Order: sequence, then C-alpha cells, then structure tokens
Amino acid sequence: MESLMEPEMEPMQQKTHRVADRLAVRMSHIAPFEVMEIQTAARVLEREGHDVIHMEIGEPDFTTPQPIIDAAIRALNEKSMFYTSALGLPQLREAIAEFYRSQYGANVDASRIVVTAGSSAALLLTMGVLLNQGDEVLMADPGYPCNRHFVRAMEGVPKTILAGASDGFQLTAQHIEAHWGPRSVAALVATPSNPTGTLVHPAGLRAIHAAVTARGGTLIVDEIYQGLTYGVEPSTALSCAEDASHNLFVINSFSKYFQMTGWRLGWVVVPPAYVREVEKLAQNLFISPSAPAQHAALAAFLPETIAILEARRREFQARRDFLLPALRKLCFVIEVEPEGSFYIYADCSKITDDSFALSRRILQEAHVAITPGKDFGLNHPERYIRIAYTNPIARLQEAVERIARVLL
Amino acid sequence: MESLMEPEMEPMQQKTHRVADRLAVRMSHIAPFEVMEIQTAARVLEREGHDVIHMEIGEPDFTTPQPIIDAAIRALNEKSMFYTSALGLPQLREAIAEFYRSQYGANVDASRIVVTAGSSAALLLTMGVLLNQGDEVLMADPGYPCNRHFVRAMEGVPKTILAGASDGFQLTAQHIEAHWGPRSVAALVATPSNPTGTLVHPAGLRAIHAAVTARGGTLIVDEIYQGLTYGVEPSTALSCAEDASHNLFVINSFSKYFQMTGWRLGWVVVPPAYVREVEKLAQNLFISPSAPAQHAALAAFLPETIAILEARRREFQARRDFLLPALRKLCFVIEVEPEGSFYIYADCSKITDDSFALSRRILQEAHVAITPGKDFGLNHPERYIRIAYTNPIARLQEAVERIARVLL
Repeated sequence: MESLMEPEMEPMQQKTHRVADRLAVRMSHIAPFEVMEIQTAARVLEREGHDVIHMEIGEPDFTTPQPIIDAAIRALNEKSMFYTSALGLPQLREAIAEFYRSQYGANVDASRIVVTAGSSAALLLTMGVLLNQGDEVLMADPGYPCNRHFVRAMEGVPKTILAGASDGFQLTAQHIEAHWGPRSVAALVATPSNPTGTLVHPAGLRAIHAAVTARGGTLIVDEIYQGLTYGVEPSTALSCAEDASHNLFVINSFSKYFQMTGWRLGWVVVPPAYVREVEKLAQNLFISPSAPAQHAALAAFLPETIAILEARRREFQARRDFLLPALRKLCFVIEVEPEGSFYIYADCSKITDDSFALSRRILQEAHVAITPGKDFGLNHPERYIRIAYTNPIARLQEAVERIARVLL
Repeated sequence: MESLMEPEMEPMQQKTHRVADRLAVRMSHIAPFEVMEIQTAARVLEREGHDVIHMEIGEPDFTTPQPIIDAAIRALNEKSMFYTSALGLPQLREAIAEFYRSQYGANVDASRIVVTAGSSAALLLTMGVLLNQGDEVLMADPGYPCNRHFVRAMEGVPKTILAGASDGFQLTAQHIEAHWGPRSVAALVATPSNPTGTLVHPAGLRAIHAAVTARGGTLIVDEIYQGLTYGVEPSTALSCAEDASHNLFVINSFSKYFQMTGWRLGWVVVPPAYVREVEKLAQNLFISPSAPAQHAALAAFLPETIAILEARRREFQARRDFLLPALRKLCFVIEVEPEGSFYIYADCSKITDDSFALSRRILQEAHVAITPGKDFGLNHPERYIRIAYTNPIARLQEAVERIARVLL
C-alpha cells in the first residue's frame, strides 16, 4: 500500500508547492538573467575542483577602497545608525554637488541630488514620478535588461530601438526623430553602456536632448559607469545640456567607479520641480537609503580615495588594451572600440552562429565564464558575447589562452 | 527698470523650476506624511532654542545593539563588500530560519526566506509577484499608509476597511467575508499594528487565513513589530497557520525589535512556489540587499544581543504602563489596550473635534511632537493621535506634564 500511496502523493505535493496560486502577469515579462545560469554552472565546475575564470559578472574585482571602509568603521563607532532623511544625508548631497563642480565643472545644486539605495532605487523613483500606464520610454537595444523592467514595474512600456555598431550601439537624435510616437514621453541613454562599453559623446547627447525637448519629453541619462572611461575625458550630461534642468534626470551609483557594489548606494539628480515628488515617493517606498553606506560614501570623494580609484581605472584601461587585440586575434570582431565601463561586446559571428552555445562551450571546455548576448535584448543576441575585464591581466591572458585552445 | 524686470522674471522662473513638466498620476494618490510637517515645525522650534520632546517618530530611540555594530566592523575589516545573492547571504537566511525554530517553534525552511532592503523592499516584491492591475488587497484603516502605496505602486487597489475599536482596529474574518469582492486577491494584516499597537491573536489570524483561503486568496502578514509585545507571548503567523505555506507571505524587519532602522534590512517568508519569482524580481529591482547590513545582522540572534533587546523590550513595556494611565487622566481615551509595537492610538474626542489642530497646538504650546490621525487613513482621523513612546520615562513624564498644562 505504501508504495502505491507515495507516487499518488507526489503530484499533489507538487501542485501545492511548485505552482504559484497567483502570479502577476509582469513576472512573465521578466526573463531570468542567463548570466545567473552561467554562474550556477560555473559553481558546479568549481565544486568539481576546476579553476574557473569569471568574466561574466558586472562587478569590479577591486574591493571597496580602504578610506571608505575606514569612514564606515569610524561612523559605526561614533554615530547612531537611525533613519536618515529620505533624500539622504545633507553632507553627502553637498559632497556629490561639490564633486560635480570640481570634477566636471557642472553646477548642480545639492538640493537636486537625491541619494538612493543604489541606482536601482534611483531608476524606480524616476520611473515612478514620470510614467503613467502605457507611457513609452525609448532606449537602445542592446542594453542593461533591468532598465526595461523598471519602466514596466511602473506601468510604462520600454520601446527598445535596435542600435547597431554604426551608432556605437547607442541612441541617436535620428532614432528619437524616427521612433518618437504619440505615447512616447522619455528617452533613456546609458553612457558608458552596459554591455557595449560605448559612450554617447557630449555633442551626441546635446542632440538627443534637443530632439527629446522638441517633443516635450524627458531625458534620463544613466551615468552609473561614469568615471570609468579610457582615453576620453569623463563627462556628465549635466554639463553638456546647460538648459536641461527642467527635463533631465541623471542616474548615478557608488557601485562601479567607487567600487561599493554591496553597499547599495547611488543617487539621482532631478529637475528642481521634481524634488518634492521624488522625496514623497522615496519616503513611501524606501524610507531612507542605508545610513552606514552613506557615512562610508562621505569618504568616496577624498583625494586619497580618488588616487586609489584612478590607479584602478588605469589598470582597467591596461586590461582593455590587452584584451582587444587578443580577442581580435581569436576572430572575435569588436566593431566599436569600447571607451568605458569594463565590458567588451564582441561579435562572434565569424566563429559561430549561436553565441549562447559558444558561451556554454567556453565555460565547459575552457572554464571561462562569459555572458551571451541574449541577456541584453533582441538585437542579434546570437552574434554577441559580453566579456567583463574584472580580472588581473595575468588571468585575462590565461583566459585568452584557454579560449584559443578551444577555438583554434 | 530693474525693479520692473524682477517681478516679471519671477513667474517665469517659477514656471521652469516649480512645475513638473510631466507627473505620473500615482503621485497625486500619495499624500505627504503629516508627521514630516510636524518634524519640520519641531526643528524650527528647536532652532529657536526650545526643547522639543519627540513622540512623533516611528523609530526606536535605542541605538543598534553593540554586538551587531561589532559584527559589522569585523566584517568590514575581514570581508569584501561585493553584491550578495539577491535572496541574501545563505548563513543569514539560515539564522533567520533557526530564530523561527528556537523562538517561535515554527518550522520554516531557509530556502523560503528572502532577505530584503528593509520591509519596504519585502512589501514591494510581494505586491510585485502577486498583483495585476485592479487587483484588490483588503487592509484595515487605520493602518500604515505606505502599505497602501506599495499596492498602488504595483497597479493594485488598496481596499481599506474601517476597523473600529471593537475589532481592535484590526481585520477580522467577518471583514473578509463582508468585503471580499470579485477583484479581491489578497488581505494584508499588520500585527502588532502601526499606529494602534494592537495585535491579531493566533485564533483571529487562523480565522482570517481560513476566510482568505476559502476565497482562493493570499494572506500577507506584516510582522515588522514582532517581538515588541507586552504581557503577550510574541507569535508568528507561520506557526498559527500550519497548512498555509502555499498562500501566506510574512513580512519582517530588522528595524524595530532589532533596532537597526538606518541599516535598511528586512525579510519576507514566501511560499516555496514563489521563491524563484521573488528572486527574479529582486535581481531586477534591487540586485541584492546591503552586504554590510547583512553581515551585521548575523549577530542579531546571538544570546547577548537578545539579552539587550529583551531588556529594552521591558523598558518599552514600562513606558507604555506609565503612559496609559497618565494619558487617560488627561481625558484621552485609549479604547483598546495596545499590546505591541511602541505606539498608543489615543482618542482625543473628549478634548477636541480636530486632532490635527490639537497636535499643532501641543507642539507649539507644549513643545511635544505627536502625529495626528490623518496620517493613518480615513477612519475618523480627526478623533485620534498617535503617540510613540520612544523616550525614557523621565521625558515621557515631562511630556505629560507639559501637555497637562496646555489642556487643563
């Protein structure tokens, strides 16, 4: 009897435990990240004793600079970690404003700076105050997939525009003119871009802003890789569109350049008329950003921290400069020279017509983890892989040699 | 000429800088917290040199226990603060599961525990996986206003039910039966409650769960004040509804009992079938909860931390026991004995028919800050004030004496 009962029990238990009773439709629009599957497979290999080189993750390999750690410890010893203002610690907002002034010559009043729980919260708040149901936000494909989901989460419609190598994989003013529709309300530009590492240079950004403004729209510029540029002066949309303060939101983060990923801290510069609205929404959805992270971040702009970060930026640049010719020698085509972030978006169509299978094969045979294009949209993802140069050059060299052995 | 020009400039500048070009409709549904206005007015008084007693804020006055601070500092010295899993550090999820086991005799598998950026993120994720546009969530009025906004943010409709003193200001199974409609999909219960300090006891919770289950709905229980109960054993919905694992979400927080407000850390226990969905949404909307906060929270369940927290809980109880008769002597009516959190929801209709004006008057004349009922819904808010006993007894005594001088 028992052996008869057990198989009968199984499906029932499955029904109770594996199928969600109720699931919001939005969940079917959110694909899991392929990179997570790659990571899981990599971990299996590592448990089997293999040495996996991780080039799949969007996170610097550098630990948080010591002056930032020291500031956190000092604050923990000296201060109480109560809620802060929903807009963030006033002295941190001032420090960010001063950084814009000294580093970029941009004059941004501290009152417009809203400190957030990472750029994730900054994007959610921005979409939250701007979008009604059905409102379209134009953005480039390939792009960071979460940007689409923040639009969707706030009832909007991400209108992705296929941006090819000839456009540097970025939106242009021509795209705005061609694709702006009656329901379009905003455009989102990410510069430097994840996954392509390409920039929108100031002249291009000015043209995009003019095209958006002419249509009564809002421009959202994601600058979360700001500062990580190579051979190009870092810049900000805030100084290239002088008259933009009424319709420009600029998203930023302490994660990438400042290497504070796990701390979850970012900010958004909002038009003056939106400060109160963003504050209201932030009070309700987040209460306040992390107090320890904010105290730590006060040290992010110190000269000794910037010296560490600039040395690391040069190291990133050296890695990129090593990888670009090495990958090209392996028949990867890098159509647009990446000038920022820490990614190379490589066309592998001379090697395969299935970048997804190729990433799997490189992981299984070379033990090098990379991210297939399918995580970044529908713009010929089968042609591309994203490689993060978040390893020392010796490891990158090892990775290239391993991939060569598989491909050649 | 100049004096003529200037007034002309003003309205233009106002137009550019004060009126948002585009504002989502949802923003008009989110009222600013009255308590923030009270705080601003209090700060003005303080700048004028007055000593203001703060009883308006929903935050313990106790600083984070030292063992938690120490754990954070140790982690900052020894570990890298990279992104963690979107679900949280495995050892923290295990520690929370063990806490349910040892403290509440509830058997909750760690795989069901999702660590979040405060209970705010827990609520957003819960609503995000459950709600489609127009789906109703039943909840009591008076209640914590943000709970309504989380429902709205995810396209749902908060269906507030007037819950009076005879129901302990809480939902009952009868409410579910009377108000459940064709678009109702979930009920939200907060126990202990903000602003009333009242509980839903296990039998009541079981009845609510049964009523919700009979209608194919989901029960969301907000336990963010769990552990802060007086004269009543603390409990969890997870042990009072044994067969509930398929349709019960339980929200919790490290902010209140564990006194880690500024760290922004909480968790949600989700049905097994929802773990992957919540993970997907968390990856997209938050990436991961704060790493330093998670390392700190590992020390939250240590015996030495619990000893500190229990001493503080007894202190909260002593404050409540002092305040209740003292307020009643001043003609405030406290219809339902608050058994949890750190709030008293006092009926002041014997004193005034306008609790809002009364709070203003008490602030201006007694320099005691309290929150008017209008922050908590539409259930006769003009009758009530919320008093937070987040001050030492000597200060509470001073506050009562000052209020007495104004009222008597």
